Amino acid sequence: MHDAMEGFSRHISQQFNHELESIRTEMLAMGGIVERQVHDAIKALTENDIQLAEESKRLDQQTNQMELSIDDQCTKMIAIRQPTASDLRLIVSISRSVSDLERIGDEASRICKHTIEIFNSGNVPKGYVEVRHIGALVSGMINDVLTAFARRDLAMAYRVAKQDIRVDTEYRTAMRTLVTYMMEDPASISGVLNVMWVLRSLERIGDHARNLSEHLIYQVSGTDVRHQTLKSIKQTLRDDSPDDEDDLNPNSE
Amino acid sequence: MHDAMEGFSRHISQQFNHELESIRTEMLAMGGIVERQVHDAIKALTENDIQLAEESKRLDQQTNQMELSIDDQCTKMIAIRQPTASDLRLIVSISRSVSDLERIGDEASRICKHTIEIFNSGNVPKGYVEVRHIGALVSGMINDVLTAFARRDLAMAYRVAKQDIRVDTEYRTAMRTLVTYMMEDPASISGVLNVMWVLRSLERIGDHARNLSEHLIYQVSGTDVRHQTLKSIKQTLRDDSPDDEDDLNPNSE
Repeated sequence: MHDAMEGFSRHISQQFNHELESIRTEMLAMGGIVERQVHDAIKALTENDIQLAEESKRLDQQTNQMELSIDDQCTKMIAIRQPTASDLRLIVSISRSVSDLERIGDEASRICKHTIEIFNSGNVPKGYVEVRHIGALVSGMINDVLTAFARRDLAMAYRVAKQDIRVDTEYRTAMRTLVTYMMEDPASISGVLNVMWVLRSLERIGDHARNLSEHLIYQVSGTDVRHQTLKSIKQTLRDDSPDDEDDLNPNSE
Repeated sequence: MHDAMEGFSRHISQQFNHELESIRTEMLAMGGIVERQVHDAIKALTENDIQLAEESKRLDQQTNQMELSIDDQCTKMIAIRQPTASDLRLIVSISRSVSDLERIGDEASRICKHTIEIFNSGNVPKGYVEVRHIGALVSGMINDVLTAFARRDLAMAYRVAKQDIRVDTEYRTAMRTLVTYMMEDPASISGVLNVMWVLRSLERIGDHARNLSEHLIYQVSGTDVRHQTLKSIKQTLRDDSPDDEDDLNPNSE
């Protein structure tokens, strides 16, 4: 009887692990869709591809539904499995992450909306060089943070958080350039404004990618590093894994 | 012995209810601070009060810390108390709500940042009428949604969600007006852009207030209404409380 109980309990625990793994996989799948949304949104704008903009915009409904479904599974797992410690942290981190992924999808949709407005106006405004440049940076961040999640790689998560600082700097420079375009040619104001909103969305996508890296750090290390400076995040990771000196070199910043 | 156990269990349950009430009160207190932040940010801009802008900006650290502290308490309560059903929904709803409150605080900070930029430029741009108007609408939404939380008033929550549609319409009209200001006077572009960012922040604050109303509806009714249309939210509430016809009249939209 004792053996039977032990077997039963092992069975439950295996099933729970299977559920945790499955929800983690679903979150990564949602990440893949969101990554494609952002990629397509940038491509649609810079290549003036209205059909791609409309397709990418439609993906938003799918990511909205995935957010609800994954979040619902998270709450049910908490109610039924009553997880603690690292299992609970995994669930909390997934629930926070799908919220940021959904917001990235929202921003990609906004980019498509502005692409459609630009297309309908019949003019191609200046500023696509800046969109391509910052677009490539934030696309790289999304790709990296999803890889970091898949590998539970905190050093990689840290690099994503650090990259956000670069995006913010490049964003401010790009905005100044766009203001001069407007001043030189007031007739272009509406068009350039659309590009500005796109850049703003890209900058926000960078913020969400950084949030995702913070959720992973919480999941693995147990420390909630939201609202912390990069320096203090680095300290958290150093305390957690003193061997990983290369990626967390204090002189590399 | 049996009585002692029952007494113990009642004691635990009372303590848990006390904890739930206390975390709910903390969330409402955070809401009060965020409400003040938004109020002060709008006042600082429209009355050119640089000191108030700097004070309001500093409040952001406090709301960041409150988010972390309340979220930490939520996770600990889940781990220790292992709540289910409505208790779990209350905790999940509070955790989601502090995230939206923190983002409202972020937007208020952004408004202050633009106020400081405008002040330093020495020029007062056009567009303050629009800021006052939309500012009053979103301030009202925050106030109403916090009252709805305090009273668990779903009809009031629904009205907040509905008000967001009006904010979006007024926002689009205001943006068109601001574009004409820029075209008429290209020298004003930088200044008017600052006002545009402020309006964008106000519009996002409206979105977060709507999110808060959806978290309350989830908390009380158990239905996750995120990404639903107003019509379908109304249906959820009607199914939940068929007596409340006045506020949920299908002809009132």
